[in-house]
Amino acid sequence: MGVSGSGKSTIGSRLAKVLSTPFFDGDDFHPEANVTKMSNGIPLNDEDRYGWLQTLNKLAKEQLQKNSCVIVCSALKRSYRKILSEGIISNIKWVYLSGSFNQIKERINKRSNHFMSSELLQSQFDTLECPQDAIIIDISLSPEDIVEKIRNEIEVKSEFGLFGLGVIGKSLSRNLAQKGFNISIFNREVKGSEENVAIDFKNTHPELEKSQPFSNIEAFVNSLQTPRRIMLMVNAGKITDMVIDDLIPYLSNGDIIIDGGNSNYLKTKERYDYLKLKNINFIGVGVSGGEEGALKGPSIMPGGNKETYELVRPYLEGIAAKDANGLPCCTYVGEEGSGHFVKMVHNGIEYVEMQLLAEVYDIFKTKGKNPDDIANIFESWKSDVDSYLLGITIDILRKKDGNDWLLNKIVDKAGNKGTGNWTTIATAQLGAPSTLIASALFTRYTSFYKEERLYASENFGITHSELSLNSDDVLNAYQFARIMNHYQGLKLISEAGKAYNWTLNLSEIARIWTNGCIIKSDFVEELIPVLKEDDNILTNQSIISQLKALKPSINKVVVECVLSGLPVVCLSDSVNFLNAYTTSNSSANIIQAQRDYFGAHTYQRTDDPSGDFHHTDWN
Amino acid sequence: MGVSGSGKSTIGSRLAKVLSTPFFDGDDFHPEANVTKMSNGIPLNDEDRYGWLQTLNKLAKEQLQKNSCVIVCSALKRSYRKILSEGIISNIKWVYLSGSFNQIKERINKRSNHFMSSELLQSQFDTLECPQDAIIIDISLSPEDIVEKIRNEIEVKSEFGLFGLGVIGKSLSRNLAQKGFNISIFNREVKGSEENVAIDFKNTHPELEKSQPFSNIEAFVNSLQTPRRIMLMVNAGKITDMVIDDLIPYLSNGDIIIDGGNSNYLKTKERYDYLKLKNINFIGVGVSGGEEGALKGPSIMPGGNKETYELVRPYLEGIAAKDANGLPCCTYVGEEGSGHFVKMVHNGIEYVEMQLLAEVYDIFKTKGKNPDDIANIFESWKSDVDSYLLGITIDILRKKDGNDWLLNKIVDKAGNKGTGNWTTIATAQLGAPSTLIASALFTRYTSFYKEERLYASENFGITHSELSLNSDDVLNAYQFARIMNHYQGLKLISEAGKAYNWTLNLSEIARIWTNGCIIKSDFVEELIPVLKEDDNILTNQSIISQLKALKPSINKVVVECVLSGLPVVCLSDSVNFLNAYTTSNSSANIIQAQRDYFGAHTYQRTDDPSGDFHHTDWN
Repeated sequence: MGVSGSGKSTIGSRLAKVLSTPFFDGDDFHPEANVTKMSNGIPLNDEDRYGWLQTLNKLAKEQLQKNSCVIVCSALKRSYRKILSEGIISNIKWVYLSGSFNQIKERINKRSNHFMSSELLQSQFDTLECPQDAIIIDISLSPEDIVEKIRNEIEVKSEFGLFGLGVIGKSLSRNLAQKGFNISIFNREVKGSEENVAIDFKNTHPELEKSQPFSNIEAFVNSLQTPRRIMLMVNAGKITDMVIDDLIPYLSNGDIIIDGGNSNYLKTKERYDYLKLKNINFIGVGVSGGEEGALKGPSIMPGGNKETYELVRPYLEGIAAKDANGLPCCTYVGEEGSGHFVKMVHNGIEYVEMQLLAEVYDIFKTKGKNPDDIANIFESWKSDVDSYLLGITIDILRKKDGNDWLLNKIVDKAGNKGTGNWTTIATAQLGAPSTLIASALFTRYTSFYKEERLYASENFGITHSELSLNSDDVLNAYQFARIMNHYQGLKLISEAGKAYNWTLNLSEIARIWTNGCIIKSDFVEELIPVLKEDDNILTNQSIISQLKALKPSINKVVVECVLSGLPVVCLSDSVNFLNAYTTSNSSANIIQAQRDYFGAHTYQRTDDPSGDFHHTDWN
Repeated sequence: MGVSGSGKSTIGSRLAKVLSTPFFDGDDFHPEANVTKMSNGIPLNDEDRYGWLQTLNKLAKEQLQKNSCVIVCSALKRSYRKILSEGIISNIKWVYLSGSFNQIKERINKRSNHFMSSELLQSQFDTLECPQDAIIIDISLSPEDIVEKIRNEIEVKSEFGLFGLGVIGKSLSRNLAQKGFNISIFNREVKGSEENVAIDFKNTHPELEKSQPFSNIEAFVNSLQTPRRIMLMVNAGKITDMVIDDLIPYLSNGDIIIDGGNSNYLKTKERYDYLKLKNINFIGVGVSGGEEGALKGPSIMPGGNKETYELVRPYLEGIAAKDANGLPCCTYVGEEGSGHFVKMVHNGIEYVEMQLLAEVYDIFKTKGKNPDDIANIFESWKSDVDSYLLGITIDILRKKDGNDWLLNKIVDKAGNKGTGNWTTIATAQLGAPSTLIASALFTRYTSFYKEERLYASENFGITHSELSLNSDDVLNAYQFARIMNHYQGLKLISEAGKAYNWTLNLSEIARIWTNGCIIKSDFVEELIPVLKEDDNILTNQSIISQLKALKPSINKVVVECVLSGLPVVCLSDSVNFLNAYTTSNSSANIIQAQRDYFGAHTYQRTDDPSGDFHHTDWN
């Protein structure tokens, strides 16, 4: 606002550019009647102005729905400004371009093709009622300085930016805001599918009142304090790369991108290296907990440069779940993609925990129990093997749909989104046999062969013989397999640490898995002290004793299921793996001999301590 | 050869350049005494020449050890040429630069700073004894034409080139030569480790008499007819890319590179695309059979462009093993990397076949049988389940080392070279559960945990209870698991065909696996007609009947081994997989419910035939 000639259009349009927001000149919105009057040299009265000011108020409201805008208008009287700000008073920032009569007169006269009589200018000054609540700008400054000054005054910079308002992104935003952080939130604008996501989201959650919503990347980035902290919650893969490339032009040296998606750990290393060339810091962060965990406190597994982590630590630790001692379930995991690696294995362990519950359910189902019966059995197990997944499985078993259980109406095809797949690939590549994770993944794949299964079921005509197993047998087998699952997952992490030269603390990793995440359980809690002694939990005497005690039960369960024709892939795998793992002299000698026979791959000898490789001409 | 002034040095040095071979001027090798004589204007007599010609003969011999060279020497008399060619007569090509007295005299006189008396030139002509066995060149042609003419006359172009003389490369070269193909063979020169490989190899195998050995890439490439057919037998991975880049500068449009290494099928596609840009054809060829198979006839699995295949077909089919009907165990597999994919899965199936033999051996070992006993049992199985791998395992079991069996002295750590790993990764990526291949791979990995196994063996104190299994039980279980193994491997190939749009003929693939390769067996032979009906062998009634008949045995074997604490990972997996595969209603519904519970991943309903996805608020 300001009198004619104070530079409103120049400053307004420049400011809009800097803020990446639309610019509107109020004069363009006069109704036909006003335009005619003005072109005939007849001054407008307040009545003429009334409808016009309402139009501008409506324009401002519309724009605020999207994000923001700059509108210039002389707005000389308090009453005009009241109309302009009706209903949006807390969203408006007034900027008053202030100069003396002579200053402005001189400036106007300097403009070519422009003349304003002293009289007319004087009438403007006479009408002007100086605002109390505006940012007041001395127009003798250069336009650049003015724009910079306004920008600094207008903007409360956010300390943390969240990019991508999907299910988890939304929950994390609310979590951050609830913890008192000033945040900017961003979601792209896609006509017809993603419109006004950020602003609508802000408006529906009171805790987001102070947050700044954006659909323009530049404005989003500019709204952040430096070094900027931008957490991406977008789809892993190409989308993440595209988003990073979209952000780069607006970032400054030392800004930090935090990838909170389920990205592949090798990609995280590549992105780190790529962004380092551009002086941008990059942290790969595994986040577990689903929608609810993200809101109430997830488990967070950050990896990357330690100093960079320190700069984002207050935010990540602030929103994380708390462990039994009140410490955040978030810790610096290690270098490069180690955070995403640990999250990936977390998900792999989760695959197995889910598959084991499915197998155990299947045993009771085959024994003729209904879902409520099974829920009650699981309920009775809580004192021994409580976990988040056990809890939700009980809820699932009890859920009714009409007269039936909902579970009975769910198609038996289990999907997957990539992390189980990656864990299996990592296991193959690193030579650390997480057999249970692969088995759980492959069992999901087999479930997708629904047509073939129906056909085979008929052709093979398999019927299940009766199972004599009781609840304790199954509970013990379940717990046995869970121990093997956690051994294998942690071993895989430990082997990755060695292969990639990451300094990992497995006990700390177990600690941050005790709350907020999908695999939280009493057993993970038990592992914290165990892992302080050794990364390999199978060297722990208490674990060894437990496994020995549980072994007869898992043998019994696997044997009965095999005889009955009931598939128990992971239970079966767990006992075979332990049998292989506890074999001092395995049958691998015959494989090595075969390899030497047809491919001259050589072998080592038990009677040659040098470890040299030998070859035999076998035939 | 030729009189002074006939242009020997000019032509010789140019020719050497074109042939990429060293050039030597005979005059540079005169002994001190001769040089003195000549500088004093005293003509050399034949005695003077004798030692000098012997020196040149020695030089030629040395050079032939490496590859070849060009030596110029007037060599006017038959007797001189006899000395020069002593011991290497069949390796020498004489080139006689022929011109008239006047022609040469005029040419000499034109040279600045050079004068030769008519008398001296005449004496040369007087001495000259025209050769009978030389390439005779008219020196009135331009030097370019002369060199081109000599080159064409000198070189018999080979029809096929083999690059890389490792174990398999050598065997394939001999195989090609034995089939009457004119080949060029190449091996790089590495001081101290790989010296004179190609020439030495040629010299030690009479069938290679006509083959041309090289250590210079350009000369190797130039020795081939166009379109050139160059088969790479080098290490898969970066080495293959490096070799391709080394070859490219010397190749012409339409030349063909055949990658016979165990390359990753995705890399084969990349290389195909890369070379296409350079108008070079590329074929990825899986070769199975080990050293012996490569020599006597391997199984060959070529993939890529069909027209390109036709250009290399006579060579590949010529050297391949023959099936029961005398047809070559080589067929066009399909597009892109399909040949390497099929070879990869072949190796995956091989991993499982080896692991099953190891498990079966382990059962008999646990029953107290010694290797000879076990060999006899396996021998008795031949009528039911004969295979190459069974055969070599019998040889291995019978091999003695002093008073003991050699097998007992082999360290039980089974290595791997990547294809089992890749198959497991492909299984994870394509969603086709080849559980046995993964299990066989992971069991090799577990075998590598030797230290841990020794420690665990002591700590867990597992002892094996007695096994009541008899030979037939084990044979049936073994055959059951083998059927499942072949089902899974072929299914994986079939799924890859669908995923990558390859047109594959699985029956043909089985046919080319019936001889030459490591997994050749009576069972693969049985599969040829089965696969003509359906890619999925589990839809075949005869296979179904077999599996049903064998099921009680595998149940019994797995159960006894589990109870005894003996790991039988693949046997166990095979029965669990079939149990899962024949389940019409699996427990995957609970996994899908869990996924929807914590991640809103949705599920399908049995009572909604639309297949729509539903979400429930579970708690």
